[in-house]
Amino acid sequence: MTELLLNHLGGRWQAGTGAGTALVDPVLGHELVRVDATGLDLPAGFAHAREVGGAALRALTYGQRSAMLAAAAKVLQARRDAYYDIATANSGTVKGDSAVDIDGGIYTLGTYAKLGEGLGERRYLADGEAARLGKDALFQSQHVLVPTRGLALFINAFNFPSWGLWEKAAPALLSGVPVIVKPATATAWLTQQMVRDVVDAGVLPPGALSVICGSSAGLLDQLQPFDVVSFTGSADTAALIRSHAAVVQRSVRVNIEADSINSALLLPGDAPGSEAFELLAKEVAREMTVKSGQKCTAIRRVFVPEALYEAAAEAIGARLVRTTVGNPRNESVRMGALVSRAQLAAVREGVAALQAHTDTLHDGARHALIDADPAVACCIGPTLLGARNADTAALVHDTEVFGPVATLLPYRDTAHALALVRRGQGSLVASLYGSDAHALAAAALDLADNHGRVHVISPDVATAHTGHGNVMPQSLHGGPGRAGGGEELGGMRALGFYHRRCAVQASTAVLGALAPTA
Amino acid sequence: MTELLLNHLGGRWQAGTGAGTALVDPVLGHELVRVDATGLDLPAGFAHAREVGGAALRALTYGQRSAMLAAAAKVLQARRDAYYDIATANSGTVKGDSAVDIDGGIYTLGTYAKLGEGLGERRYLADGEAARLGKDALFQSQHVLVPTRGLALFINAFNFPSWGLWEKAAPALLSGVPVIVKPATATAWLTQQMVRDVVDAGVLPPGALSVICGSSAGLLDQLQPFDVVSFTGSADTAALIRSHAAVVQRSVRVNIEADSINSALLLPGDAPGSEAFELLAKEVAREMTVKSGQKCTAIRRVFVPEALYEAAAEAIGARLVRTTVGNPRNESVRMGALVSRAQLAAVREGVAALQAHTDTLHDGARHALIDADPAVACCIGPTLLGARNADTAALVHDTEVFGPVATLLPYRDTAHALALVRRGQGSLVASLYGSDAHALAAAALDLADNHGRVHVISPDVATAHTGHGNVMPQSLHGGPGRAGGGEELGGMRALGFYHRRCAVQASTAVLGALAPTA
Repeated sequence: MTELLLNHLGGRWQAGTGAGTALVDPVLGHELVRVDATGLDLPAGFAHAREVGGAALRALTYGQRSAMLAAAAKVLQARRDAYYDIATANSGTVKGDSAVDIDGGIYTLGTYAKLGEGLGERRYLADGEAARLGKDALFQSQHVLVPTRGLALFINAFNFPSWGLWEKAAPALLSGVPVIVKPATATAWLTQQMVRDVVDAGVLPPGALSVICGSSAGLLDQLQPFDVVSFTGSADTAALIRSHAAVVQRSVRVNIEADSINSALLLPGDAPGSEAFELLAKEVAREMTVKSGQKCTAIRRVFVPEALYEAAAEAIGARLVRTTVGNPRNESVRMGALVSRAQLAAVREGVAALQAHTDTLHDGARHALIDADPAVACCIGPTLLGARNADTAALVHDTEVFGPVATLLPYRDTAHALALVRRGQGSLVASLYGSDAHALAAAALDLADNHGRVHVISPDVATAHTGHGNVMPQSLHGGPGRAGGGEELGGMRALGFYHRRCAVQASTAVLGALAPTA
Repeated sequence: MTELLLNHLGGRWQAGTGAGTALVDPVLGHELVRVDATGLDLPAGFAHAREVGGAALRALTYGQRSAMLAAAAKVLQARRDAYYDIATANSGTVKGDSAVDIDGGIYTLGTYAKLGEGLGERRYLADGEAARLGKDALFQSQHVLVPTRGLALFINAFNFPSWGLWEKAAPALLSGVPVIVKPATATAWLTQQMVRDVVDAGVLPPGALSVICGSSAGLLDQLQPFDVVSFTGSADTAALIRSHAAVVQRSVRVNIEADSINSALLLPGDAPGSEAFELLAKEVAREMTVKSGQKCTAIRRVFVPEALYEAAAEAIGARLVRTTVGNPRNESVRMGALVSRAQLAAVREGVAALQAHTDTLHDGARHALIDADPAVACCIGPTLLGARNADTAALVHDTEVFGPVATLLPYRDTAHALALVRRGQGSLVASLYGSDAHALAAAALDLADNHGRVHVISPDVATAHTGHGNVMPQSLHGGPGRAGGGEELGGMRALGFYHRRCAVQASTAVLGALAPTA
């Protein structure tokens, strides 16, 4: 039997009492470790986080909590090699893809440590200036932001066991709100190991950070009115969370990041072979293959002017054909595995469904696997599909195949392109390609209400831009509609979810006594 | 048969095809008008608001929309007398109470007209400064706020047919988002009349403002991913809205304002007869009786130091005994009617339930009605209850009786008082009374996470403060937990609900081309 990973709850490490669920190497197929959350005393564990962890965190200033985050980042930094080994084994990712998760997570944690420094030795935040409530300044309204006196429950996705934890935990802990994370079972190992390292290093107060590995059964039932829950995953699970009694009856605040059928759009005016054209082909091929396309921000739809359809298919295909797929332990491999046989089956099914309505411009099934047994490994080559009539390709606008798959779609003019992008019904990100700054700016503004982020790639930032799919802590992550309507990151904006806003209406003397360092 | 009020939907006035529901004078008991929404083409009407109204509003700048609000306020101002007549007949309110609704609504509309002027000739808002995404300033992230391309559906409460409309419609319209309002049936007349006057005056573009009077059946089914819905009313209806498919599956943004068991707290240190003590007694008596206690912000629980319990009961009771109750058309009457016989029955039932666990310190049932027939009129005197053991009076902390009713509760020390206030599990507002600025400020901060607003009444603002229950447009209105978790008003903060936030990541040249006046 493999090791049974412990849960950290109620300030102590606890084993589940069940047989456990196995985590599997998606390339080699063997069992790695087991997780189990059976028999945990959830009411006591949640109360401990809320009362012990919350009180300890709120007793600290933002400056002190910021130093705490920096210390946690240092602990993680020292253990990077171990995390890369877990990622290779449990996620089947090549080094560069593991870095997006591991180093991306540590970078985000470090960014919030730095942002928090600027908040200094205070325990609440002023929200704007005082506003007069009468003709003179005798009686005024001052809005404040104070940490919610509950806990933050994170129900996370399998694709980012590190980044998914820290991009949420950093703003929560900086805000003074204790965290309980429930990682996706398939890749829970890395999350558990990182929590174990940070908890054991003693850099956080007891109760500040807990981890529950295994089933999420019963977790939502524990939520109280001042708790918050943040979920990343499928629209179906999101709907279950939204309709749970805690949310419906207790006003528990929810953040959802669900499906997203993101777009890349080459604006009119740049010929095949132009810089903007090549930037599109490069970014599409990169986004399709990074983490084998298992990113909620990956490009799923690629829009080009009608006349450039064939040239774009060729340019993207020429890059995809060079993508070597297989065992990430082999240095020549550029793209590793999907996370599980179940995901492999789902991706194959999704591709087949799309293929019934599209042309296959580059067939991923033809990629031979390197150092991997197709009967065991969850590997698949990248597939580019195409539909000459973007208006009638309904399924393409509605289907997120969570793997190395995208569809090329031609458009008539800019208005047509923007309308087609909107058929995603709300996405995390769209990227725009072109060389006309005014046309790019106008398209970005037009799409802004439909996206959490618009990423503009023009030749002047060919090497400086941060990538369509990379989530930078400085920018909002989330999207309206189908994407779930959530908001994460965006620098200091992330703290809003963990704070409560209150208007204090008082005499100027009383407002003066609201000592920010109290 | 009385007049059947028309609905305004799809840019035209339409009668429902059903028999209609009667609106009744709550003092005299006779039928006033009828409402009906049977047979309306909701899909076409909602599409018209979204497409015609939304496009027209978004084509205007904030400055132009601000002028539009000012023009609407002018139209309403000219028709004030008619609105007072409707309020007297349909809400049974005395002049001062009608003013809270009518003039409060027009004032709020005017405030947003003024706030909007400052935004000028632009069609989107910058959200913060650009942030660098690399070492140099070549590639940056600029957050923007753009109006959502959907509509705002308001499902409103019976107690504020005017203010409840305008406090929501003003920020929505200023943001460029069309409004459909569904007023509570009992008092829909005033809402309908105001919409009629503004629409007929032609100061808004077609489709910008619609009103549906009658049943809310089917309204939520019409909501699309970029629509928003704002509800004020009971926790039960709030739960229905939160679990509706539009919200659960389409990420429709929701704002809820539900029950609230608000507190007034006299801090330790001020003796009976002191200024702070008298300010408490005065404010409690006022809040209990304004609009017959039918305000979601009204004081329901009154906390005083143990030693001051009897003195407080006496001081509040002495004011309540002078409250004349009955027909608002009689000049000597200070408090009019509840809205309906159903509400009267609910209040009587609620009082009886509380009385089983409390002492009756002032009995509202003993007030003789002036110019009103107790068998017909929905009038009831103010009732002050008291419980000597605030810890065991569980029902008092959990029950909102929506009428002229409050309960006096003694506390041992400040920590005890603050813990008791929190047993409301999230409220719209708490008011604090005392003369020590530091103690008041500390208590305000302590309660901030639990309340949308903390209103501090100290002797220096005895005449300048704006009232515990009055909602000022400059301050946040809403509260966490039981209060629904919503946020309204708060000056410019209100615009956030109607905008979508997006991070535009681009070269500095492209960001420079994001012309704010485009």
